[in-house]
Amino acid sequence: MPYIREYGVIPGDLSPGERNSLTDVDGVRVGHCTVTENGHRTGVTVIVPQEENPFLKKLTAACYVHNGFGKTCGLMQIEELGTLETPIVLTNTLNVGLCSDALVSYTLRRCRQDGVDVSSLNPVVGECNDSRINPIAERAVREEHVWTALENAHRDFQQGDVGAGAGTVCYGLKGGIGSASRCFRLGKETYTVGVLVQSNYGATRDFMIQGRPIGKEILCHGWQRRVEEFTPSMEDRGSIMMILATDLPLSARQLRRLVRRAPMGLGRLGSFTGHGSGEVVIGFTTQNPVFFNEKETVLSRKILREDLLNLPFQAAAEATEEAVLNSLTMAHTVKGQDGKWYVSLADLLPELLRKERNDTI
Amino acid sequence: MPYIREYGVIPGDLSPGERNSLTDVDGVRVGHCTVTENGHRTGVTVIVPQEENPFLKKLTAACYVHNGFGKTCGLMQIEELGTLETPIVLTNTLNVGLCSDALVSYTLRRCRQDGVDVSSLNPVVGECNDSRINPIAERAVREEHVWTALENAHRDFQQGDVGAGAGTVCYGLKGGIGSASRCFRLGKETYTVGVLVQSNYGATRDFMIQGRPIGKEILCHGWQRRVEEFTPSMEDRGSIMMILATDLPLSARQLRRLVRRAPMGLGRLGSFTGHGSGEVVIGFTTQNPVFFNEKETVLSRKILREDLLNLPFQAAAEATEEAVLNSLTMAHTVKGQDGKWYVSLADLLPELLRKERNDTI
Amino acid sequence: MPYIREYGVIPGDLSPGERNSLTDVDGVRVGHCTVTENGHRTGVTVIVPQEENPFLKKLTAACYVHNGFGKTCGLMQIEELGTLETPIVLTNTLNVGLCSDALVSYTLRRCRQDGVDVSSLNPVVGECNDSRINPIAERAVREEHVWTALENAHRDFQQGDVGAGAGTVCYGLKGGIGSASRCFRLGKETYTVGVLVQSNYGATRDFMIQGRPIGKEILCHGWQRRVEEFTPSMEDRGSIMMILATDLPLSARQLRRLVRRAPMGLGRLGSFTGHGSGEVVIGFTTQNPVFFNEKETVLSRKILREDLLNLPFQAAAEATEEAVLNSLTMAHTVKGQDGKWYVSLADLLPELLRKERNDTI
Amino acid sequence: MPYIREYGVIPGDLSPGERNSLTDVDGVRVGHCTVTENGHRTGVTVIVPQEENPFLKKLTAACYVHNGFGKTCGLMQIEELGTLETPIVLTNTLNVGLCSDALVSYTLRRCRQDGVDVSSLNPVVGECNDSRINPIAERAVREEHVWTALENAHRDFQQGDVGAGAGTVCYGLKGGIGSASRCFRLGKETYTVGVLVQSNYGATRDFMIQGRPIGKEILCHGWQRRVEEFTPSMEDRGSIMMILATDLPLSARQLRRLVRRAPMGLGRLGSFTGHGSGEVVIGFTTQNPVFFNEKETVLSRKILREDLLNLPFQAAAEATEEAVLNSLTMAHTVKGQDGKWYVSLADLLPELLRKERNDTI
Repeated sequence: MPYIREYGVIPGDLSPGERNSLTDVDGVRVGHCTVTENGHRTGVTVIVPQEENPFLKKLTAACYVHNGFGKTCGLMQIEELGTLETPIVLTNTLNVGLCSDALVSYTLRRCRQDGVDVSSLNPVVGECNDSRINPIAERAVREEHVWTALENAHRDFQQGDVGAGAGTVCYGLKGGIGSASRCFRLGKETYTVGVLVQSNYGATRDFMIQGRPIGKEILCHGWQRRVEEFTPSMEDRGSIMMILATDLPLSARQLRRLVRRAPMGLGRLGSFTGHGSGEVVIGFTTQNPVFFNEKETVLSRKILREDLLNLPFQAAAEATEEAVLNSLTMAHTVKGQDGKWYVSLADLLPELLRKERNDTI
Repeated sequence: MPYIREYGVIPGDLSPGERNSLTDVDGVRVGHCTVTENGHRTGVTVIVPQEENPFLKKLTAACYVHNGFGKTCGLMQIEELGTLETPIVLTNTLNVGLCSDALVSYTLRRCRQDGVDVSSLNPVVGECNDSRINPIAERAVREEHVWTALENAHRDFQQGDVGAGAGTVCYGLKGGIGSASRCFRLGKETYTVGVLVQSNYGATRDFMIQGRPIGKEILCHGWQRRVEEFTPSMEDRGSIMMILATDLPLSARQLRRLVRRAPMGLGRLGSFTGHGSGEVVIGFTTQNPVFFNEKETVLSRKILREDLLNLPFQAAAEATEEAVLNSLTMAHTVKGQDGKWYVSLADLLPELLRKERNDTI
Repeated sequence: MPYIREYGVIPGDLSPGERNSLTDVDGVRVGHCTVTENGHRTGVTVIVPQEENPFLKKLTAACYVHNGFGKTCGLMQIEELGTLETPIVLTNTLNVGLCSDALVSYTLRRCRQDGVDVSSLNPVVGECNDSRINPIAERAVREEHVWTALENAHRDFQQGDVGAGAGTVCYGLKGGIGSASRCFRLGKETYTVGVLVQSNYGATRDFMIQGRPIGKEILCHGWQRRVEEFTPSMEDRGSIMMILATDLPLSARQLRRLVRRAPMGLGRLGSFTGHGSGEVVIGFTTQNPVFFNEKETVLSRKILREDLLNLPFQAAAEATEEAVLNSLTMAHTVKGQDGKWYVSLADLLPELLRKERNDTI
Repeated sequence: MPYIREYGVIPGDLSPGERNSLTDVDGVRVGHCTVTENGHRTGVTVIVPQEENPFLKKLTAACYVHNGFGKTCGLMQIEELGTLETPIVLTNTLNVGLCSDALVSYTLRRCRQDGVDVSSLNPVVGECNDSRINPIAERAVREEHVWTALENAHRDFQQGDVGAGAGTVCYGLKGGIGSASRCFRLGKETYTVGVLVQSNYGATRDFMIQGRPIGKEILCHGWQRRVEEFTPSMEDRGSIMMILATDLPLSARQLRRLVRRAPMGLGRLGSFTGHGSGEVVIGFTTQNPVFFNEKETVLSRKILREDLLNLPFQAAAEATEEAVLNSLTMAHTVKGQDGKWYVSLADLLPELLRKERNDTI
């Protein structure tokens, strides 16, 4: 499947990184396990923030809850201590507990291998509700799916209807996992901001690409040529998880300001972030790690000058906008458990682009 | 000056109220006092939430700070008690204290007239930094300007470069006061959400109207035909105050969810809400008032069913988007104290619209 | 084991309810499952907020995180929507995921019995770290323990070293589950505030009972007569979960103000709420329920007049103070997995009370 | 008047600094202007955080709102940017706007002297409602009172019924300005935490000193021998402002955790922090300043290891407890504008201490 850029759509002004993905941030890897047996379409996506044991080398982290109608766990401690000490797992709404439990098993085991006894750790698990496509109440995800996703973690990873994105729906289209990144210079250094989304929100009519009312065009006619049945999302339901990674030297407070800009990218896509759509951003930086068993009384930190945050803020909004679009073009058309088709944007966009645009301005 | 709709630009899907302004909410009035003597371009805008003494009949209220780089006062008590007990005053950054003081004088006097002794009250004052056009350090606003604005308060009010918007700059263009509203049915009733903004944010290159990169077009050529000098805003600095009024039966918690959607309208205009741009929303509903000297132990409230908030959320984002555009088209071109011209969008838009649109999609 | 009142210690001024416990609030029940096989000392405590299915009749709820160094899950949605839709489960730190998963199973099953298909629900699980007494990394809690605790739920329930309190340590003494309540009149009605704690915090030297430095007295001599070994807690580590129930007619905002007062009770016991001690309060009221599948557009609510909150606030602080003391006197002396003894306050208090008090004032 | 220690009352375990006051933190000064003409009893207290211009050398800062029923201004920007750029002014509730305005004048003038043009600055003003003693609606504070307080700022300063504490009432006794500090070693360094309070909260019956129910004893008999009329505070009304200064190397996030511990000291004094009693803490550290016109892209910071925060937390609670007690013993008995006497604790404590203590335990 193609990325959104292959259609000539270039969100924003900043340049992407080499992979145009979250993993452009050095050390970050992403892995999936897609669960499709027995009519399920769900799974697990893990974001591994670094090569090292994240419990022993905690990363500075922050989060922002734009709409708390969701079940993400682990945010309370991130907010308090400003650190991330496990990989981040994404899954479906009703398997958060199981994945949290698996993340504890994984971290205990890894710490045991590293010779450290752990009695307290903070698993971070996000979720979207994939019940339109996946029989969610059967809770198909098992502990071994988390292992598999962790083993699969790699700098190069698939986007679209895979892992935790296998069953999600976005703007009535097939959603999923999408990613993008932005690079920019500050002083003498080049920094990267990467975003990964699990997209599962939005009413069809609200969907815009660079201001063009694609959602309304689809409602009018676009879809007829491709699929027999298409029932648009009439209400903004679901959720979106946004994971942001960067190599900027930031404090937890600055990172909190940064992750707040991710939802602005949703605004550019026409979303007003509805009642039933949980929006959560979790961000971390690979700079300023906090070491377990640190012996020093006073630690040194490197912090970006505050007024230089504008470029990072722009990068967060742009990468989020593009990540959502990639989640849509990289996903395949699938049939939901409700019997409806959830169409890939890639199946609609070529024809829509051929049509004369009906300018509203 | 024309409203944005006069150019055929219709943000969003919902219908506006009769005036397409904040004052479509019954009882709400807006007044200005523009201060232009001695080279100043600043002033005061007041939002009077109701006819009655707001201290004696407090309105349910909520606020949301998207970017706290600003000096708005009064939010702490709104957050704690969920009520608004004075008119809301908007002004420039360095006159917040003076206007807060004037609001105390006003409320004490009014309560004395109503036979009530007051020893504690919470003045609410918002601000933008108008120093590009106005010699802000001279702090031209005086107490009598607040009186004048209060006396001028009316359902019909001017928009553009008036009152607290006299000296503001938005996307490098002349900003100011703008307003819009949305009406919709829920159950058997029609409800209204109105928004008023004091627009003073944004880099020129980021400005979009319904996805069209108007800011970039202006940077290329549009401005040349109208004004001799035009220096674009290169950084997203300034602030935006957003005031939301509604007649929906909401709790303070629901209202807090509603006001959070206003900044999504900024995302649609291309903003990523930069570091130096304080974004604050203050909202109130004319339903569920809290009476001073209430004698009942237990009060009755009417509350909207939670899952019906989607339309109000959409209304908040759409009205904010349109309010900003109105603040731009309703403002006149002025010369700043820095010698630069700050051009009205109304002076540029006709030509821009005549040009063939350079579609990016 | 005796309650603290049996020693003549009467915290605060307000009268307790009939049971002096959380379950004085009508409909509330508490159940335990204590896990002691294979050298474990851990377990599960459930708070069942009402007789009816809490998913179909959601209760108004609020939470407050005084120190977020903890792993409680489910708070994000409580904060956003102001409702509780499952029982609350307490357990050890490393079994939160498993209990969350069990709570999903339980609620899905119960809703299926009630003929409702559920695809999204918010399990609420709190925790303390019982690793001083319990080999926590073995994660002994199993799904069936949650069932057992739910089946055991009753208005009359045990306090002390049971359920989720089996392995906790408080001020270096054996902690556990404790509860207390307060009743008071407002207008013509009598209302109840009940608190249940899972106590697992505090350095021995900080412990005070009504200002008397009991912790320091224990450090000096008190313990010598009872147990061979006693190693005081030198640092304020651990956590405390506080669950508050009431039948007051409150909004979620008011309830949030109320639950913030619970930690003031800890201050009276000498705690300064240390770095490593997560403090979380979750509260609900049995008034103002929100029904699943509600059809009305606008709902009626009963809300307490705001300035009448003083008595409820006092009740929350007093009940928390007494609940912690009950958790200490109701617990039995046990030997930890670290080989140290964790002594019951009940084993020390009689002698301490016989001693002449060494007044510091 | 005597400090509380002169009565043998030693709150907590840590040692105070040389002055046992906020100004033990190097560079911090405090100044008052007491306004007593025309029957007023109000005034201004300023906390000058450092010798240098605080706008040019901003200090890392944080705040915590325990009860937001108050009018403090400037917190929004502290929360967002983590810096303090003006002195902190305390005054009465209805003069916050005026003092905020004066602080702008002061800072503009000082920056002009330093050759810097300023167009935006964040004045920080806290308040208590002194209307029981002072005819607050006459708003006696004038701009020159702020100047005087700033000029008076000194490491040695008066406590009790002076400056912003001239008219405050605490537990029904005469309240005012009080201060205390704690010193402790971490690694090879000695650090200081100082607290200053403006005390104006509490019902008489709730007042405890080290657990002894002094408030109830006063209600019974203690006061009879000293003053003819004494009407206790029956409700917890008013406010308390707490200012915390330290020389610890902390981030804004860590400082936010630290200032949250100050209210625990109020718990030790028997307060449950009532509805009508605004509680606000503002803290700053003299380490990690942020320089205006900083040219470096990336700045170096020194940060305390997180798990070493326990001693600072304890220091914050203990210093707050002692600061309140000092505010009470250092104040003189005065007659309020309501005709009631507000008695100094120093007039009651000697007799109370002579009495046999009526132990409740």
